[in-house]
Amino acid sequence: MNHSQSSEDILLRENKDGAVYLTLNRPDKFNTLSDALLTALQRELEAIAADPAVRCVVIGGNGRGFCAGHDLREMRANPDQAYYQALFRRCSRVMQSVVALPVPVIAKVQGMATAAGCQLVASCDLAIAGQSASFAVSGINVGLFCSTPAVALSRSVSPKRAFDMLVTGEFIDAETAVAWGLLSAVTEDDDLDAAVDDKVAQILSKSPAAVRFGKAMFHPQRQMALADAYDFAGDVMAENMMSPDAGEGIDAFLGKRQPVWEQPGK
Amino acid sequence: MNHSQSSEDILLRENKDGAVYLTLNRPDKFNTLSDALLTALQRELEAIAADPAVRCVVIGGNGRGFCAGHDLREMRANPDQAYYQALFRRCSRVMQSVVALPVPVIAKVQGMATAAGCQLVASCDLAIAGQSASFAVSGINVGLFCSTPAVALSRSVSPKRAFDMLVTGEFIDAETAVAWGLLSAVTEDDDLDAAVDDKVAQILSKSPAAVRFGKAMFHPQRQMALADAYDFAGDVMAENMMSPDAGEGIDAFLGKRQPVWEQPGK
Amino acid sequence: MNHSQSSEDILLRENKDGAVYLTLNRPDKFNTLSDALLTALQRELEAIAADPAVRCVVIGGNGRGFCAGHDLREMRANPDQAYYQALFRRCSRVMQSVVALPVPVIAKVQGMATAAGCQLVASCDLAIAGQSASFAVSGINVGLFCSTPAVALSRSVSPKRAFDMLVTGEFIDAETAVAWGLLSAVTEDDDLDAAVDDKVAQILSKSPAAVRFGKAMFHPQRQMALADAYDFAGDVMAENMMSPDAGEGIDAFLGKRQPVWEQPGK
Repeated sequence: MNHSQSSEDILLRENKDGAVYLTLNRPDKFNTLSDALLTALQRELEAIAADPAVRCVVIGGNGRGFCAGHDLREMRANPDQAYYQALFRRCSRVMQSVVALPVPVIAKVQGMATAAGCQLVASCDLAIAGQSASFAVSGINVGLFCSTPAVALSRSVSPKRAFDMLVTGEFIDAETAVAWGLLSAVTEDDDLDAAVDDKVAQILSKSPAAVRFGKAMFHPQRQMALADAYDFAGDVMAENMMSPDAGEGIDAFLGKRQPVWEQPGK
Repeated sequence: MNHSQSSEDILLRENKDGAVYLTLNRPDKFNTLSDALLTALQRELEAIAADPAVRCVVIGGNGRGFCAGHDLREMRANPDQAYYQALFRRCSRVMQSVVALPVPVIAKVQGMATAAGCQLVASCDLAIAGQSASFAVSGINVGLFCSTPAVALSRSVSPKRAFDMLVTGEFIDAETAVAWGLLSAVTEDDDLDAAVDDKVAQILSKSPAAVRFGKAMFHPQRQMALADAYDFAGDVMAENMMSPDAGEGIDAFLGKRQPVWEQPGK
Repeated sequence: MNHSQSSEDILLRENKDGAVYLTLNRPDKFNTLSDALLTALQRELEAIAADPAVRCVVIGGNGRGFCAGHDLREMRANPDQAYYQALFRRCSRVMQSVVALPVPVIAKVQGMATAAGCQLVASCDLAIAGQSASFAVSGINVGLFCSTPAVALSRSVSPKRAFDMLVTGEFIDAETAVAWGLLSAVTEDDDLDAAVDDKVAQILSKSPAAVRFGKAMFHPQRQMALADAYDFAGDVMAENMMSPDAGEGIDAFLGKRQPVWEQPGK
């Protein structure tokens, strides 16, 4: 295991085989997304996007909470509309970078995920939480409707559920979040590490090229009309078929043996 | 409590604090949406949209049914395509006025909601029903596919469920409607009034400005591409941050005290 | 019962009253969608689309599996990008022809539905499965991400669930598929025939014209902005109101008698 740390202590980075574990590390602040943390996240996501050896990313949080959204004290210290516009664009860029990342991103949620923290969960491709985790878009309680979180949340759960959470600020528990599709799975709190590692191992066992083809097509096609989505998906899949891994995978399947995938970046 | 009544007896209006309770009042006709009732609804929705003192709307029905859709007898008395086009445009305008209203709209469903009645439930931001309520888009049973209801229903529940209801005309019960996301909650029939009043009280306890920012951004952004939705949401949220209530709310939160919101229209 | 068979033994066609039962008939190959089977499916769908007497279609499979997706051996025998593009376009055309068919299409799933087989289930308007059926988009296991199946799946179930299935290739059982909205219903395996026949009978009991109006508007309007969808749906519904069946259906309802529908194509 290669245990490195980013230049920013507020964001830890650990590399395990082809997976990168990012950990929000402001536990005394419930890992709120300060300007500095957003900048550190953006930098790491861009580094990951440029690194062909990375095959999967996990985003977790240190301490009792996963992420409590924006840093309200910092926001109040900058009472300027242009500052806020820039802040929300920076945060929205981080969220869209998660969606656009060329490899799957898993949210690992060990505690409360609120406001932009809940948005981060909604923005990830997969999300696994311990049973005591909880979820809210609670800006409404401080007079600030969670508008940017609403973008991700309303693309993850059905509209009445999203609007209810947004207008009441109420928490839902992890079981409800699974039932609504905000989470992929819930585990005993003590099993969270193992459950996430299992999911990572499962992804690492697949063809790196095929996973990248899939991540690159999944989100863009959702925004297209059906005929356009099929044209796009068909072209991606034809390209995928021409890759060495598809040949190897199909030959291995037909020959009843284990495939051996190409390992990019090595 | 200010207990007023609209000029139209077929639509009752009651003002309680910042909430408006509209009640479809054709109980002997299962509150079918006659031309006159659609006109009355449109008028009240426009009055509400123009009134900064209103902060929440409840739409309910008198009698055993919530709303049985269009008035079939009236429709058959006007066998003219231009009449029907105008009728469905008028009804569609009511439904879109609910979506576009600057404050949240709650459907309070005490009985059967069929065809355009089910569409009205689907069009509201939130919906609470008694356990004996039931839901169908049953036009198919009279040779008239519920096409305009399908617009709202297919944006509220998943496609196979919506199509099944539309092509069979079968009823689903309130528990199923919650499970599918058509309803926000189901209660004992006797608790319906209290449950709706609680939800109203919860919304009235929030910043009126923040709720309006949220309602104004939630539905439009759902129709945008992700990047456009984020640009729009970020600008709305920055504007929201500049409002007095956001400053007050955050200061109150940081100071561990209750916030005091601005009360517009007073 | 008119028991005919298509010119291709790999696709059986049976006509029962106004319903057509298509059966994928490569049981020793788990009904994989070879070039020949895709061509036969496309031909039958086009014949059905042109036949006003057809009112409902069922797509099932012979043998232990419903459909295992593409024929991997055939694909590997043609290692050419242009061939793959053409193949995926042909398959995507079949799926879009199901969506565009002027009458409802029911998937009848008696066993495993994987890759393009799962896509076919997702593409149908309704889907009923026996309890032992299972569903996966398992191309990832052979190095080929199920990109075209993702188009249909991500329009049928919520995004985290779709992505999870796509990136892991794991199976979900029929109960889960119902809970997620991929299936309309699940039955005991022995009751599958009866459950599908009941649903067919239910659709055949409706006005043929109204069902066609509905199918023609449901999917296109889902891709439109709300206002456009309402304009389109209102015009369709006004036209539907002018049809003899709507007059008959409403008169029968008001007169408390059974309606008698027009039978097109007879």
